[in-house]
Amino acid sequence: MDTVLHVALGADLLGVFFFAVSGSLLAARKGFDLVGSLLLASLASLGGGVARDLILNVPPAAFTNPVYLVPPLLATVLVYFVFSRVERGMRVLVVFDAGGLALFCITGTLKALDAGLHPVSAALLGVTTAVGGGLLRDVVANEVPQLFDPRDIYALPAMLGSVVVTVLYLTGTFTLVTGTVAASLVFSLRVLAWRYGWHAPL
Amino acid sequence: MDTVLHVALGADLLGVFFFAVSGSLLAARKGFDLVGSLLLASLASLGGGVARDLILNVPPAAFTNPVYLVPPLLATVLVYFVFSRVERGMRVLVVFDAGGLALFCITGTLKALDAGLHPVSAALLGVTTAVGGGLLRDVVANEVPQLFDPRDIYALPAMLGSVVVTVLYLTGTFTLVTGTVAASLVFSLRVLAWRYGWHAPL
Amino acid sequence: MDTVLHVALGADLLGVFFFAVSGSLLAARKGFDLVGSLLLASLASLGGGVARDLILNVPPAAFTNPVYLVPPLLATVLVYFVFSRVERGMRVLVVFDAGGLALFCITGTLKALDAGLHPVSAALLGVTTAVGGGLLRDVVANEVPQLFDPRDIYALPAMLGSVVVTVLYLTGTFTLVTGTVAASLVFSLRVLAWRYGWHAPL
Repeated sequence: MDTVLHVALGADLLGVFFFAVSGSLLAARKGFDLVGSLLLASLASLGGGVARDLILNVPPAAFTNPVYLVPPLLATVLVYFVFSRVERGMRVLVVFDAGGLALFCITGTLKALDAGLHPVSAALLGVTTAVGGGLLRDVVANEVPQLFDPRDIYALPAMLGSVVVTVLYLTGTFTLVTGTVAASLVFSLRVLAWRYGWHAPL
Repeated sequence: MDTVLHVALGADLLGVFFFAVSGSLLAARKGFDLVGSLLLASLASLGGGVARDLILNVPPAAFTNPVYLVPPLLATVLVYFVFSRVERGMRVLVVFDAGGLALFCITGTLKALDAGLHPVSAALLGVTTAVGGGLLRDVVANEVPQLFDPRDIYALPAMLGSVVVTVLYLTGTFTLVTGTVAASLVFSLRVLAWRYGWHAPL
Repeated sequence: MDTVLHVALGADLLGVFFFAVSGSLLAARKGFDLVGSLLLASLASLGGGVARDLILNVPPAAFTNPVYLVPPLLATVLVYFVFSRVERGMRVLVVFDAGGLALFCITGTLKALDAGLHPVSAALLGVTTAVGGGLLRDVVANEVPQLFDPRDIYALPAMLGSVVVTVLYLTGTFTLVTGTVAASLVFSLRVLAWRYGWHAPL
């Protein structure tokens, strides 16, 4: 049981880190200073989870466990001092954002199922968690949200991932292995869609 | 009693449907794809109610009762496959938005009064519910919010409706008939203000 | 004890008033009408506190105590009828915004500490409360948020204030005097940074 909780916390923190990097990268593109970078990283990485926890009526993890502040701090420093000018381009941002998307649709859906939500509602909350932070990031930075860009697909992989996780959970086949496969699927789908300009046929 | 609850749920779902259509219509105007349309419809139609329920500290209806997902799905399909290019103009959007506004200021105020809020607070929450979804829709789609457009009036009818419902409730004269009259008043005021460019004198 | 509560409520309401004036001033600059001014004042002044209370899982003060509606009403009337065209410039807006920032980082942090949050989380929530309302105000009015302007510093004084208050609280040295000094520090730092174009070195 303890192991399960550790893995869940680890996956959540990794997702937080991925979204935090996407926030710091966007801050760099917009010319924000170091504090602005930290704030946008925090909003992008913690916003979706806070919304999820408020809806589930549990204390928001970001405000009860200070360890959640480490990923945004780390991401800010990394992007500022380590990433070169080239690496601050759109390509790296999309990859990190996709990593956060993949992990959050899974951890969000699981947390909702564990809280006893109806499977349909749990999948909805998983998608909300996954797309929420990135949406806040883009709106606050005055960008057209990636979420609504008709030139590629963004929400569809997260929807697919949330449904897959719900089915795995209900059939008792959710394990570290199947969960990792689901996350990889969401991640690959999102990155490939962006790379090759796949878009919804409608 | 059961009938009362059914009518309340029906009115709420109808309001959700109206706002969902306004979201899908805005998505069509902005060139979003079908998934983007569904997402904007969901945000516009469910956002205000989720805010209301979080403030009342009750589980958000959109995440406990999957039937709330039907209106956004229906609206997305309707706008995509049924509404012609002409009908996707601003006029239809404003009419549906006004329908949502009228119903939400009433259902929101009632839910707040039932939860025991102070009458003034209940009217405030009714207005918040009514204007919240449309505000989220416009901000996320990077539009100037209709709410703040000085060329016509938007919030005033909702404020009036919330106050009227509060008075009806406190005097024990809120019925299906008086409620419908109040909703029609809000709807007519909003649509007439838009049509004839009425605006606040100050 | 009663005195403490009265002082806390007074400080909170004063912060609400300062942010409400900043909202009404921004509304005047954007050409909103009187209702739009009231709405933007309410969002700017009550938004941060509602977020704080939702995260703390207590009923949002703005929706339980109608006295919280007085400052936005007062600010709207003041800005409309009293402030001259000159006084509606950016300078006055920044000064009132700084007043709200200074008071909210202190009242927000204290409320979080009183609710038993981890000191680090309490400071984070103080900053969130302080910058939240202004961020909502700017995003909804389609302005580049002051929070992210790299030409001066905005969040840093609030962070400093929240940390100082946390230390004062934990060491048992938080009093009306030390609290006032902390608030004056945050206010002066923010206003001076804006006036002299101080900005983060990184």
